[in-house]
Amino acid sequence: MGEIIGPMDGTIEAMPILKLSCPDRPGIVAEVARAIFDGGGNILDADQHTDRVHQRFLQRIEFDLPDGGSLDSFRDDFGDLAAHLDLDWTLRRGDERVRLAILVSKQGHCLYDLLGRVAMGELAADVAVVVSNHTDQGVAAERFGVPFEHISSEADVGEALDRAEVDLVVLARYMRILAPDVIDRYRNRVINIHHSFLPAFAGARPYHQAHARGVKVIGATAHYATEQLDEGPIICQDVVSVSHRDDVASFVRRGRDLEMVVLARAVQLHLDHRVLAYENRTVVFD
Amino acid sequence: MGEIIGPMDGTIEAMPILKLSCPDRPGIVAEVARAIFDGGGNILDADQHTDRVHQRFLQRIEFDLPDGGSLDSFRDDFGDLAAHLDLDWTLRRGDERVRLAILVSKQGHCLYDLLGRVAMGELAADVAVVVSNHTDQGVAAERFGVPFEHISSEADVGEALDRAEVDLVVLARYMRILAPDVIDRYRNRVINIHHSFLPAFAGARPYHQAHARGVKVIGATAHYATEQLDEGPIICQDVVSVSHRDDVASFVRRGRDLEMVVLARAVQLHLDHRVLAYENRTVVFD
Amino acid sequence: MGEIIGPMDGTIEAMPILKLSCPDRPGIVAEVARAIFDGGGNILDADQHTDRVHQRFLQRIEFDLPDGGSLDSFRDDFGDLAAHLDLDWTLRRGDERVRLAILVSKQGHCLYDLLGRVAMGELAADVAVVVSNHTDQGVAAERFGVPFEHISSEADVGEALDRAEVDLVVLARYMRILAPDVIDRYRNRVINIHHSFLPAFAGARPYHQAHARGVKVIGATAHYATEQLDEGPIICQDVVSVSHRDDVASFVRRGRDLEMVVLARAVQLHLDHRVLAYENRTVVFD
Amino acid sequence: MGEIIGPMDGTIEAMPILKLSCPDRPGIVAEVARAIFDGGGNILDADQHTDRVHQRFLQRIEFDLPDGGSLDSFRDDFGDLAAHLDLDWTLRRGDERVRLAILVSKQGHCLYDLLGRVAMGELAADVAVVVSNHTDQGVAAERFGVPFEHISSEADVGEALDRAEVDLVVLARYMRILAPDVIDRYRNRVINIHHSFLPAFAGARPYHQAHARGVKVIGATAHYATEQLDEGPIICQDVVSVSHRDDVASFVRRGRDLEMVVLARAVQLHLDHRVLAYENRTVVFD
Repeated sequence: MGEIIGPMDGTIEAMPILKLSCPDRPGIVAEVARAIFDGGGNILDADQHTDRVHQRFLQRIEFDLPDGGSLDSFRDDFGDLAAHLDLDWTLRRGDERVRLAILVSKQGHCLYDLLGRVAMGELAADVAVVVSNHTDQGVAAERFGVPFEHISSEADVGEALDRAEVDLVVLARYMRILAPDVIDRYRNRVINIHHSFLPAFAGARPYHQAHARGVKVIGATAHYATEQLDEGPIICQDVVSVSHRDDVASFVRRGRDLEMVVLARAVQLHLDHRVLAYENRTVVFD
Repeated sequence: MGEIIGPMDGTIEAMPILKLSCPDRPGIVAEVARAIFDGGGNILDADQHTDRVHQRFLQRIEFDLPDGGSLDSFRDDFGDLAAHLDLDWTLRRGDERVRLAILVSKQGHCLYDLLGRVAMGELAADVAVVVSNHTDQGVAAERFGVPFEHISSEADVGEALDRAEVDLVVLARYMRILAPDVIDRYRNRVINIHHSFLPAFAGARPYHQAHARGVKVIGATAHYATEQLDEGPIICQDVVSVSHRDDVASFVRRGRDLEMVVLARAVQLHLDHRVLAYENRTVVFD
Repeated sequence: MGEIIGPMDGTIEAMPILKLSCPDRPGIVAEVARAIFDGGGNILDADQHTDRVHQRFLQRIEFDLPDGGSLDSFRDDFGDLAAHLDLDWTLRRGDERVRLAILVSKQGHCLYDLLGRVAMGELAADVAVVVSNHTDQGVAAERFGVPFEHISSEADVGEALDRAEVDLVVLARYMRILAPDVIDRYRNRVINIHHSFLPAFAGARPYHQAHARGVKVIGATAHYATEQLDEGPIICQDVVSVSHRDDVASFVRRGRDLEMVVLARAVQLHLDHRVLAYENRTVVFD
Repeated sequence: MGEIIGPMDGTIEAMPILKLSCPDRPGIVAEVARAIFDGGGNILDADQHTDRVHQRFLQRIEFDLPDGGSLDSFRDDFGDLAAHLDLDWTLRRGDERVRLAILVSKQGHCLYDLLGRVAMGELAADVAVVVSNHTDQGVAAERFGVPFEHISSEADVGEALDRAEVDLVVLARYMRILAPDVIDRYRNRVINIHHSFLPAFAGARPYHQAHARGVKVIGATAHYATEQLDEGPIICQDVVSVSHRDDVASFVRRGRDLEMVVLARAVQLHLDHRVLAYENRTVVFD
């Protein structure tokens, strides 16, 4: 019936990844390609996009250093060229492991899903801490041997994240609002799942709103959290058809599957350095 | 490669169809089934729904009169029982042909699609008139030999509809608002296509709004028009995925295919008497 | 951001459910409705279907016994009527809990997903045993406190299932074939997930087959297992779009999310008594 | 309610488009970018893909010649470099108009759809001829003022295509098989729509096959025709959910909408030079 795939099956990229953006101008593709080539890099996969409205060029490049070149010295060499080309850029080792915080309230479906994926090696990440304003999901964290912190005062959340030295914060159906300074400190590193196809049904109880409106599709949206609730740059969205036979409880039930898949996909894309956020929108090189 | 299907392949239902609704109460399914049986009818297909929030029972029944019974006498007999059961009901001959008005502005994709479907016999309807506030699509109507009326004053539209003796009004990307008295006269008989997944991006230029928000899905919504713009009961919705590679023109282009399919599906469902509207929502027995 | 829903939110139906089928004939809807009514039952939700090709009538009815009637005496009364009407029927208490066996090979994603859902109370079931031809997933079972049996000889599986007194067997990416006598003993109670949109790519390594063919969609299929591999009655299918950017590893990764959602949905539908299998096909009253 | 978009809204690309492929090797991206830059071109949009299985690099580049350079002299200059780089390449003016042949049997939905799109200016093409082995759809061609040829002998089709000097042949539910020499002469320029998600249900009567198998999704596949029936490189596929409520006639009806949208999308992608076929598969730069 099927292939046996180990935990390392392509999920975890071992190659260095360069993400860059700059004001668009003629010749930029050639210049960047040349700069990488001159730095000893061999482009394995390049994806670029020009946003003509905002006149911005964005690119993601996977490359290797075939002659045993060091990434550090590539970084130095490329840095000089990048300065010359006025690039906004980041260079990530492909094999880094990211430290995750998962924040959750009472519902555990996204939490269980993420814990399972990490346990199976699907995500190149470790769960540094699970934080909740409730105690219900302590058992889930315990099952997977992950630290759990019950924090009732919102003001203490930022400190817990810093203490756990996390790289990425996942709001896995977390029903509280993060403090603006936390949002700011983890800019484009806080992923929230909202249980509607935003911008429809922002705010509280979206499935109730959706049912009251009589919609025939419901959705879920993963986005980077910003100071404006439910208004941050969208990473992924997906929907599922519903009918008059679905009541609110059924919306909730069907929505759960969407939420966990859409959130996990957004986390995966982020971990693969496939998401570039700018101007409250994203380029997703999938 | 495939079957040959004539124009009559199941699209056009030849059987009488009963639609009914009433306050929900115990025993109603049995009572209605008995009433049809007593009236000489044989239920071929029945679909019912109980809206527990609004405490309403709704049902669609296709039946035949196997012993050569007349539909008129069935109507009389059933009427007595229905009064006794306090039903809100309609009985339609299955083989009626509906007279359509198609209202359109400059864009012709939904118009061409509907004209083609009628020409091929996919829809059990005739196009009585195409009405437009522009002259661009006159040629489309002419190609299909259908009357075209260019009406620049909104006040004259209702009269044109009445004059053409239409049963159903289809707003096929009609960029004007119907007068409230027309909406009222054709209550639940005006189908509009809105080019977003409502309630997101109601109002003007939804693709521009959607692109500005950076969404990853776009949609289309067919609904019965009411006095409140873009707020009537939803019949069908569908969406398609988009990415950063799609600009507004690409949203428009992809959206067109959605719009024409979603609108045609809503019209088809209406013509098959599969839609029951109540409380600003619909039950769609598909 | 959203509603708080406890584990019991509508997932677990507390109402008795009657499933029945019989050769189609006039008056059957009325007769069944009358039989339930006479037995003291009040129909809350009824869904029926007539398969005109196979001339079969199938129905699912949720009802309650409002005057404190007993289900056992209802069963007796209804049984007499059912015999008279020549019905093939089953009556289930709504609040029963089903005992599950989950069979798995090396990959754990469907297993983790099901264990999480049971732990959260999403599924009205208990996992009686996890059976595997490998030891890899023992840790998953252990995390959720569920018995794990490593069985290397296929001949011993049936005995393990019987010993655990299971009602439903879920093949959650189980790469072996069940013995015919097991299939027969658990007829329509073994749900398999196949990682393609059957009948395309039956058999081994479907993602490799799909990639070799250059398809633009991949899928997953949940079906009741029969003696013919990958040919049993289909319960659910879903697909996701892929592109040239997806290699086999990416097919596998995207496919995993499909597999777990489609399998969980099939299990849920089965547990809600929404699936009626006949003639190697299903009616799914969702 | 919405934007007014003229017929030229981005559908018709005015820019030159270069498609190329070559055996993959280090530095190729930089070399091609440099070659275009040296030829006086400014890259507006570039999309590339490396097929690691077949070790092939493929790229599509939209560019302009900002200093009023001539495309002919660019072609000459680039040709020298391309020879040096061992590229397999084509260069198309963006504003060319393609001559289409549409082949059809009895069913007209794809034909009407394509005729409407051409009439509205959605497709940068003209319909040079409609060819059919039946006379039914002559009226459709006539409505749009397009030549219609009824050809009963398959042997005469190739000659009719040549006589009409067509660039692209669209099999819009054409139930005959083209002669191998025609396939060969129009290699990767014959687009067929098959009414299933291939490779499931190849051959005759796919909806009947699908219904007999009891599937829960049906699909449509647009592909370049090859000598092997239904086995050519796939351009687009899409599916729609079905249920037990859908009989074969309903499969046909729902399938029609899929077929016309999927076929039109494939034609659009081909006309935009977004499809590169190789090794019986396609790269689609959408």
